[in-house]
Amino acid sequence: MPKNAFYAQSGGVTAVINASACGVIETARQHPDKIGTVYAGRNGIIGALTEDLIDTSQESAEDIAALRHTPSGAFGSCRYKLKSLEENQREYERLIEVFKAHDIGYFFYNGGGDSADTCYKVSQLSEKMGFPVQAIHVPKTVDNDLPITDNCPGFGSVAKYIAVSALEASFDVRSMAKTSTKIFVLEVMGRHAGWIAAAGGLIADYGIPVVILFPEVEFDKDRFLAEVKAKVEKFDYCTVVVSEGCHWPDGRFLAEQGTRDAFGHAQLGGAAPVVANMIKEALGYKFHWAVADYLQRAARHLASAADVEQAYALGKAAVEKALEGKNSIMPTVVRESSSPYRWSIGEAPLSEVANVEKMMPMEYITEDGFGITDACKEYLYPLIQGEDYPPFENGMPRYVTLKNVAVEKKLPAFEI
Amino acid sequence: MPKNAFYAQSGGVTAVINASACGVIETARQHPDKIGTVYAGRNGIIGALTEDLIDTSQESAEDIAALRHTPSGAFGSCRYKLKSLEENQREYERLIEVFKAHDIGYFFYNGGGDSADTCYKVSQLSEKMGFPVQAIHVPKTVDNDLPITDNCPGFGSVAKYIAVSALEASFDVRSMAKTSTKIFVLEVMGRHAGWIAAAGGLIADYGIPVVILFPEVEFDKDRFLAEVKAKVEKFDYCTVVVSEGCHWPDGRFLAEQGTRDAFGHAQLGGAAPVVANMIKEALGYKFHWAVADYLQRAARHLASAADVEQAYALGKAAVEKALEGKNSIMPTVVRESSSPYRWSIGEAPLSEVANVEKMMPMEYITEDGFGITDACKEYLYPLIQGEDYPPFENGMPRYVTLKNVAVEKKLPAFEI
Repeated sequence: MPKNAFYAQSGGVTAVINASACGVIETARQHPDKIGTVYAGRNGIIGALTEDLIDTSQESAEDIAALRHTPSGAFGSCRYKLKSLEENQREYERLIEVFKAHDIGYFFYNGGGDSADTCYKVSQLSEKMGFPVQAIHVPKTVDNDLPITDNCPGFGSVAKYIAVSALEASFDVRSMAKTSTKIFVLEVMGRHAGWIAAAGGLIADYGIPVVILFPEVEFDKDRFLAEVKAKVEKFDYCTVVVSEGCHWPDGRFLAEQGTRDAFGHAQLGGAAPVVANMIKEALGYKFHWAVADYLQRAARHLASAADVEQAYALGKAAVEKALEGKNSIMPTVVRESSSPYRWSIGEAPLSEVANVEKMMPMEYITEDGFGITDACKEYLYPLIQGEDYPPFENGMPRYVTLKNVAVEKKLPAFEI
Repeated sequence: MPKNAFYAQSGGVTAVINASACGVIETARQHPDKIGTVYAGRNGIIGALTEDLIDTSQESAEDIAALRHTPSGAFGSCRYKLKSLEENQREYERLIEVFKAHDIGYFFYNGGGDSADTCYKVSQLSEKMGFPVQAIHVPKTVDNDLPITDNCPGFGSVAKYIAVSALEASFDVRSMAKTSTKIFVLEVMGRHAGWIAAAGGLIADYGIPVVILFPEVEFDKDRFLAEVKAKVEKFDYCTVVVSEGCHWPDGRFLAEQGTRDAFGHAQLGGAAPVVANMIKEALGYKFHWAVADYLQRAARHLASAADVEQAYALGKAAVEKALEGKNSIMPTVVRESSSPYRWSIGEAPLSEVANVEKMMPMEYITEDGFGITDACKEYLYPLIQGEDYPPFENGMPRYVTLKNVAVEKKLPAFEI
């Protein structure tokens, strides 16, 4: 009897994480002699700990194929990081119990940096606790901050969404600038790294005056306002793309304004309204602002075809590498050439991936700190190539919701 | 010599107002015996008053065709309402001077309610001031609040964008709800009418627990929180779509919280963060919020095919009706049938359009005030039918920026 596989999604979901799930499950189904059933963890690793497994063999081939064009995490995700073996041996023992009970020999974990760490810990179970399991990490994160891989599935689609949305809104402002709005501020994700904000910088190639506020560059109010003013005086309008992670020299995020509502409660807001009001107050320009939030990472309707293809390919490669007997690795995207764009699949040892954050190179940011360099554009453009529209029906995308049938539990309950 | 035509865009622009411009210009070009050059007003009616005219005959057929898939106002728009003839005769005299100087006999004005009023006033120039001009209004507004016409170009595309975006983000939240975000709040446009918010209600058909906050329904905090709590207890998560026009019983918008920043300045924010924080405080649920703002009305990448087609058809009809000798009318969309969707072009006298605001029928809102009825869905679905993707190149949409060559001025300057 072949061993079964466990697959789970972890951390913030993306427009293409299900494409990786699709790659894992479809590839596993092609090897029934070597892989039995793929069990998915309901809500990520929590599903493994609580023995809440989903029997993906109950899903039709059509529904599994539809994962490729469905955003979000089809099996549920979680934010839960396993402690080290020394700190919480109980959880590892439980994982082994669950794996044993369901005859699981393969562990595929689909997530970002924290998840790579969890996957790395699971990959050590063989050696440290004598339980044979092959653990392969499938990269995923809109933050694009995993090391070694050229880029992370999820990022290309967010980058495309932000670049296109910023372009469209900038065209709008350009139309209105004569008598109305002159400033458009778009807030984007990226608490630590400015990868997503950088994508907004691509619109400069389309003649749009744009100022980027990166988390990598300490916010300098006077220089920023001078830059906005210069752009408005030249172009009559200006677009600002601000990362949620943009902060003052003392480390405070722009969004933390110490504001209080009528009842004296601290008021949470975004960086975008703060920046917009700052401009209004200093320069008097009429503004509009938007906060894209989840819209950006869920926007499967505007996914990058390159991103979808890579997400699928990495899921597929994870299974193939497992079948080659590998453990404790993450398949990666290797860039062979930017123009024309060529890439292949490589691999990285999880020991070098776990807990390593890849920051944006400073040579991707222009000297003034407000734009992106040609090197950055050369990096970004290939990642947003191609469109991969989901099927539509009755005006709406036809996204799949799986049956997610639970596997019968064999063990006593476990408190996490 | 045939008379020339004047075309201008007015008020907030949309994803499809340029499709109407395309319809006007392409149709006029097919009748060189009856219409000379189409002059566009740079920045709307201001271009007429200041004699800042754009010679659209300088644009290639390809570039004019590309207007059909380009969002925003290609010639610039403005927020400027002509006063009545009695109040500001000087402006009307100036318009006549400009029209005379450039031999303009047709006036096509592309806008919403205020613009229809301006167009109506121009249409009376023949009668009141003895200057022969045919004025036809081309409807446009994401607010969907023009009377007589079944719907307004621009609305269908916003509705599609909001429904799709809310669905995608809700899938995201559903994935995360176990250990993280349970509430997603999306703020949409619509200061007076809840048409756009209503579009968010379509996601209930896809199994999403959604609460809509309409401007038509006075905000009741306790009932709202109870509704959210009930949905989270049943589904584990909840999406809230809040109109920017949602207000308290005393008329104050939710967004007006009387907050002050560290310097004591009034802080403007959105309704979304107010609603999200309110839920957090009362119920403790983790939230995310987004404010779509211009992204929603500029999102040509996700335009409704029905909307694009109607925008073009109404521009075309405006020219055809002018050639039939008509004045002071607005071509309209007449719904023949919802399923299958069939529509035709009708017409309305501007006297019945100007300054009349069409509100959303109360029978479109469910009794509890938080959702939309089947009648509303039957109204909305046809308007979001079909996709009409712009061409993409190098990962980005290929939107056109026209040359916008100025016509030589013949008159002295005019102060507006």
